[in-house]
Amino acid sequence: MTTRIVELRQGILKKNDELARALRGRFEAGGVLVLNLVSSPGTGKTMFLERTLRTLRERGSRVAALVGDLETDNDARRLAASGAPVRQINTHGICHLEAEMVGRHLEDWPGVEMAGLDYLFIENVGNLVCPSSYDLGERIRVALLSVTEGEDKPLKYPLMFRTCELVLINKIDLLPHLDFDLDLLLYNIDQVHPDVDTTVLSARTGEGIEAWRDWLVAIAAREEIPA
Amino acid sequence: MTTRIVELRQGILKKNDELARALRGRFEAGGVLVLNLVSSPGTGKTMFLERTLRTLRERGSRVAALVGDLETDNDARRLAASGAPVRQINTHGICHLEAEMVGRHLEDWPGVEMAGLDYLFIENVGNLVCPSSYDLGERIRVALLSVTEGEDKPLKYPLMFRTCELVLINKIDLLPHLDFDLDLLLYNIDQVHPDVDTTVLSARTGEGIEAWRDWLVAIAAREEIPA
Repeated sequence: MTTRIVELRQGILKKNDELARALRGRFEAGGVLVLNLVSSPGTGKTMFLERTLRTLRERGSRVAALVGDLETDNDARRLAASGAPVRQINTHGICHLEAEMVGRHLEDWPGVEMAGLDYLFIENVGNLVCPSSYDLGERIRVALLSVTEGEDKPLKYPLMFRTCELVLINKIDLLPHLDFDLDLLLYNIDQVHPDVDTTVLSARTGEGIEAWRDWLVAIAAREEIPA
Repeated sequence: MTTRIVELRQGILKKNDELARALRGRFEAGGVLVLNLVSSPGTGKTMFLERTLRTLRERGSRVAALVGDLETDNDARRLAASGAPVRQINTHGICHLEAEMVGRHLEDWPGVEMAGLDYLFIENVGNLVCPSSYDLGERIRVALLSVTEGEDKPLKYPLMFRTCELVLINKIDLLPHLDFDLDLLLYNIDQVHPDVDTTVLSARTGEGIEAWRDWLVAIAAREEIPA
């Protein structure tokens, strides 16, 4: 049975890669920078994304978000408070987003055109394993980690941290209350992905959000997207 | 392709269930209470388990642990400090433990016999989705959640909270520093699994560990295991 599973899995990933490639072409044609946000459950992706959408909108950027969860549309409702267009993807038991789900939810999205956006954020299902294998057509994968999760996560979930272009370290407002060694975390990140960019921030207090925005603007410039 | 995937997945789960049933028989014959600990990455399972192993050993119980991770043997090394026999299972990319892995790691475990144990703890891979589908032959599934992860996790990952017999709420020492509504979390747990047992604790300070031990002893009595 093992061989059949491996073959089938390769087939699924190959089909996903094809759909992701088509999506990437569409995003590039529309001039939108697409980011895939991955993390554990409870790292604070939604609060972080809410603040990001607000901050970018205040500076005049046109933003939207797709948000993945097994169940509930809580996150879409929270994010809609930012004023940006937001659409929920419910996976109903599937532990990751796939390119097909993204493509399907881009269809028939009232008032949202790729050509009318600067940034599209895709908040993945909270899971440090399976989302790392599924390309969603994004230009940038961002891994979010919080300081309450321990310093060892990059070593335990290496594929996720190896396939991202930025590691955002959230909840630094809690550092005074934790036995947490930030230098050790940065060392462990560097062990699995040497020289990857990192930013520390608190989605709750807003500390570090400007540095994150500067990073985004620099990436948009590098990718020649007029964001 | 979807039909083939569903069929194959059903086949995998069926085979896992058969292996789990055989393991359960073996555990029952040995008179050992087996617990499967599931949670997100970073909830504090390892610190919690270390304190649990120490506490039970101090009271004269005979305990051991199997600990699952994609990579590294960090957790086994941390847990070995408790003095209990501990064995690491590395899944190498697989996002959950399976009964076959548990069975394989029970073989040839120097000095460890099921009949010589009161409690065997299996620390699953940090993931709130996939481990919920895989029976490991345990008698009790315990879901661990920390107060830094937000109140909505039971609603977003309902299967995990529906299939456990106890929800342990960890890191309550951080409550004064968080915007966290414990009553809302308890309400949400009750929505997906009415009347499931819950315990609040801090693996760091030890608060609540005695209540957890009392729960374990009561379960061992209920299951007629002489722990």
